[in-house]
Amino acid sequence: MKKLTFTVATTLLMSAMNLAIAAQSPSSFTINAEPMFWWAGMENSQLELLIEGDNVAALTPKLSQQQGITLVKTERSTSPNHLFVTLDLHQAQPQTLTIDFYELNNPKKPATATLAYQLKPRTSDSKQRQGFSNKDVIYLITPDRFANGNPDNDNHTTMLEKVNRSDKDGRHGGDIQGIIEALPYLADLGVTQLWINPLLENNQEKYSYHGYSITNFYRIDPRFGSNQDYVNLVQQANKLGIGVIKDIVVNHMGSGHPWMTNFPSATWVNGQASLQQQLPLDFTNHRRTTVQDPYAASTDTQAFSDGWFTDTMPDMNQTDPHFATYLIQNSIWWVEYAGLSGIREDTYSYADKAFLTQWSKAIMTEYPKFNIVGEEWSPNPITVSYWQAGKHNKDGYVSHVPSMMDFPLYEKLIASLTQVEGWDTGLVNLYEMLANDVVYAEPTQLVLFEGNHDTNRLYSLMNEDLALFKMAMAYVLTSNRIPQIFYGTEVLMTSPTKDRNDGLVRSDFPGGWQGDSQNAITGDNLSPAQIEAQHFIKTLLNYRKHSDAIINGTLSHYAPQDGVYVQFRQAGDETLMSIYNKNSAPVNLALGRFAEHIGKHTQASNILEHTEFDLNDSISLTKKGVTLLKLSTLKLSTHKP
Amino acid sequence: MKKLTFTVATTLLMSAMNLAIAAQSPSSFTINAEPMFWWAGMENSQLELLIEGDNVAALTPKLSQQQGITLVKTERSTSPNHLFVTLDLHQAQPQTLTIDFYELNNPKKPATATLAYQLKPRTSDSKQRQGFSNKDVIYLITPDRFANGNPDNDNHTTMLEKVNRSDKDGRHGGDIQGIIEALPYLADLGVTQLWINPLLENNQEKYSYHGYSITNFYRIDPRFGSNQDYVNLVQQANKLGIGVIKDIVVNHMGSGHPWMTNFPSATWVNGQASLQQQLPLDFTNHRRTTVQDPYAASTDTQAFSDGWFTDTMPDMNQTDPHFATYLIQNSIWWVEYAGLSGIREDTYSYADKAFLTQWSKAIMTEYPKFNIVGEEWSPNPITVSYWQAGKHNKDGYVSHVPSMMDFPLYEKLIASLTQVEGWDTGLVNLYEMLANDVVYAEPTQLVLFEGNHDTNRLYSLMNEDLALFKMAMAYVLTSNRIPQIFYGTEVLMTSPTKDRNDGLVRSDFPGGWQGDSQNAITGDNLSPAQIEAQHFIKTLLNYRKHSDAIINGTLSHYAPQDGVYVQFRQAGDETLMSIYNKNSAPVNLALGRFAEHIGKHTQASNILEHTEFDLNDSISLTKKGVTLLKLSTLKLSTHKP
Repeated sequence: MKKLTFTVATTLLMSAMNLAIAAQSPSSFTINAEPMFWWAGMENSQLELLIEGDNVAALTPKLSQQQGITLVKTERSTSPNHLFVTLDLHQAQPQTLTIDFYELNNPKKPATATLAYQLKPRTSDSKQRQGFSNKDVIYLITPDRFANGNPDNDNHTTMLEKVNRSDKDGRHGGDIQGIIEALPYLADLGVTQLWINPLLENNQEKYSYHGYSITNFYRIDPRFGSNQDYVNLVQQANKLGIGVIKDIVVNHMGSGHPWMTNFPSATWVNGQASLQQQLPLDFTNHRRTTVQDPYAASTDTQAFSDGWFTDTMPDMNQTDPHFATYLIQNSIWWVEYAGLSGIREDTYSYADKAFLTQWSKAIMTEYPKFNIVGEEWSPNPITVSYWQAGKHNKDGYVSHVPSMMDFPLYEKLIASLTQVEGWDTGLVNLYEMLANDVVYAEPTQLVLFEGNHDTNRLYSLMNEDLALFKMAMAYVLTSNRIPQIFYGTEVLMTSPTKDRNDGLVRSDFPGGWQGDSQNAITGDNLSPAQIEAQHFIKTLLNYRKHSDAIINGTLSHYAPQDGVYVQFRQAGDETLMSIYNKNSAPVNLALGRFAEHIGKHTQASNILEHTEFDLNDSISLTKKGVTLLKLSTLKLSTHKP
Repeated sequence: MKKLTFTVATTLLMSAMNLAIAAQSPSSFTINAEPMFWWAGMENSQLELLIEGDNVAALTPKLSQQQGITLVKTERSTSPNHLFVTLDLHQAQPQTLTIDFYELNNPKKPATATLAYQLKPRTSDSKQRQGFSNKDVIYLITPDRFANGNPDNDNHTTMLEKVNRSDKDGRHGGDIQGIIEALPYLADLGVTQLWINPLLENNQEKYSYHGYSITNFYRIDPRFGSNQDYVNLVQQANKLGIGVIKDIVVNHMGSGHPWMTNFPSATWVNGQASLQQQLPLDFTNHRRTTVQDPYAASTDTQAFSDGWFTDTMPDMNQTDPHFATYLIQNSIWWVEYAGLSGIREDTYSYADKAFLTQWSKAIMTEYPKFNIVGEEWSPNPITVSYWQAGKHNKDGYVSHVPSMMDFPLYEKLIASLTQVEGWDTGLVNLYEMLANDVVYAEPTQLVLFEGNHDTNRLYSLMNEDLALFKMAMAYVLTSNRIPQIFYGTEVLMTSPTKDRNDGLVRSDFPGGWQGDSQNAITGDNLSPAQIEAQHFIKTLLNYRKHSDAIINGTLSHYAPQDGVYVQFRQAGDETLMSIYNKNSAPVNLALGRFAEHIGKHTQASNILEHTEFDLNDSISLTKKGVTLLKLSTLKLSTHKP
């Protein structure tokens, strides 16, 4: 008989909610199972537990209670410390299971260890939860940089990296409590969804604040708060009409994950053999076109998918079927546990593409009205469109991800406003990119953003020109897309404009820290321009909440002429005319060209300036900027009987 | 009774091969019919004659002989001088028809005029003629600028513009006879198809040499030769294994066309009413994305399609059903009459898109193995792909054009070779553009070119760097496309490199004029670089003729690394490895990365340098340029038993 020793990784122990101490064993023994618990009544009735424990592979599990539950199979890998146990929960009611572990060679000996595993009841509306949609505005928060609601958790004894607000690449102390406290502000601003950069444990030595080096897939990083804090955030947000979108990473993890010294299988991460032989690592070639390129050498395609992102971000091997199941269950676990309304999936194309189909299908089958948005950072709509559900790809590839981030349109938005106007420069970029919507299965389901944690700040990119900034924001917020804005954009946060500037792009939100000189929430010490921008965004966000034309309407546009670009959104009796004018000198915009969409409307009310006027032959545009007009056939304020 | 006067436009009279003089009429009277003649046994048995004659609308036609022919209908427009007469030729044998024209109000009076209309027999293999294909190399000739075989036709009494070789935008005197005389040279070079810019009459006052302002759709411009000369050219070319592709324009014509003062209908050209009222003309907005843009305002789409190209190029209205039929019959007439192997259709997207479907379908139904290539000058493969047969367009649009010009890949070819190499600059442009082939129904059926009459000269764009020039040529000629080169490229013809330089791009081919100091055909006074380029192209053209790997093979490529881009073409036991090296300093190319395609091959023969060597772990690339290797498993020259 093998000696069972008590050496469970601290971080796994910390997260285990289902510890079980063996009763009859001479030495104390810990078994950990992931998912930590599960639910009865899920669409997929199969559940695969990753059982971890010192030399647990020498044991065999048996169900001591069988209320509608079958232990389908137990699988072993090369790891002595892991078992994969598949349960069928087809007929299961909520309950706590008892799984006993017996010695393989001595099955009549009393159980060496016992695992109490909880099957919880689902909330009644869980399956039919509504994902984020065109009616929403998503607000992206980098949690370390938004608000430090609880300075007591800035550091944590077991977490390697300590707070250092003076380091642009260090941890600044923002946390879940900070977000909770900002919820009324965000609701008032008109935000209806929060996408928060990853909150899971990143127990890395350095550069851990961004959250993309996950070291525990079932645990909120204690420097952000607890799992329960996260649930509280979602519940508080929901009360204010705000949903929460989880930032999930299925491509890579953090090099500090305990698995890296205790792999659950021989193929858990790509390059695992090289790593164990201390051979050089293969990094991704970042050649994302290889995924659908009909001519790509398979080694290039594989290098893209299987190479590591950085040396602190091991590339997870989603072709390992146990790891695939682990990742799928983990995503579903968080939706069900925290009550999410969406997932944003990081570095989407870098993961194994067959797995991505499986992953997205499993989630959307579990939650048919849910939403997932993938990140494919490419300026090419052909490349991005490949990943959206419903696309008929030439290679037959099928995806189930309803949404993708609209990088192509974002990049043209920036170019269109910063380039000098010309026949083929400036606003025409934007006009022509929209014509490419034909390559998307569902262009209106894309998420269009004014910026994110990886892009330079919009106000800076617009050369701190408030008129251009407003044009960009109006474009995003009135587009036929799901709009997403980045924390602090509403108060004109800045950054350098060339190359990557992550630490500065993700600067601290003003007012998030005690003693901040400025406060975006209270308005303290905001400049007139900041107040104007904040008011502008609040006005637009709250207008669009009730605008069927923006949420569901048709889009029409006119080829830019002389620096002026006109769009129409229309639904029912609501017609919205958006005029983007890049001229600083006054311009008289003749309206005859727009007769097809102005139709019989005779009046216009300016949504942003709350003015009304008669629609005549032309509109005088006195300065650079955006004009949003709601058209009407009725004279409103000046109507005379 | 109306008085019938003899006032037929001179140019129409010149072209009429079917004059008919009325026998019984007191005044002499001419009737012209287009098409000038037709064939028995065509796939489409309906033929619509455009009958033109002074006040001919006051007459009514009757067939005096009816050998399997029915006069289906006679239609009148607002024009007193035109009739549209539809014949059904379903059962017709070759014959000469007699169509008598009677006075409408006096049908018992003897016929006022008689038209003898010829139905010719078809050549037996006409329907099954083979269009240009991947086995071909197309050579584009601007006929006014290639070779002046017959100085006697440089000017013509009835043609307005006279020869002026000192004017870059004037007529230089090149003609069909010059092309005929160059055929042996072209065949020896390895050319298998000639695309010749339009040869039809362009009787414009000035700037007529390019041929795109057609003033007679049934007549070769007499400054190029006669219709029969054109037929002779095709026949002589065919004997040398060379086909001829006609450059057809269905979007616009020349303002000097007699129709402009005698419109066959009220809707013959777009803007006709404005023109007749001397109102300002609407020019095309050139916004080609409007064609498939789901959001485009219909006025913008219409402005693109219906606007004039220039004030000397009236926009033909293909939605006029009679004009549509006229244009379709005209295209088919030239294929059948001259024995063509293809059509290149100019400014493809500018014509009415429903008409383009009808036009391309009619031609491809008549000749199922034929080929047509359309010009859609856009860098965007989404825009270009819309027009290719087999594409499943989002708006349901169906095309029957097998091929399109590959402007997107051409533009990236130039960029890839002229940009400094970097992670996302240089050769990667070309690599990533090929991945977009997924948007095309049939990417291998696209025509890829190194230049055309509208682009600056390749050698100049390559900064007169012969190594870069060869790389571009090798890329085009070994691509999985139908390759097309431009006259004079083989002897490094130059041009400015910025903006449009039409007159200079289309400079005279050296040796095409008596007294030329250089002669590309005899080799007289060519520089060493010119001789090297000509030899290089000849070698490649003649290699590819027999290379199944190039004509039909698979394409694979590897992401460029360190300025080196590698492609493989493979078919049967032929494996071709193309190495594009942009480094001036020596580079050692490790071959391990290419194992997937090198396979068991142990030997390589350099196609261009006629050397052979063992394939070891690496290849030493000593200078910038292209290396084309045919791989083999047998040691060839150095094989020892």
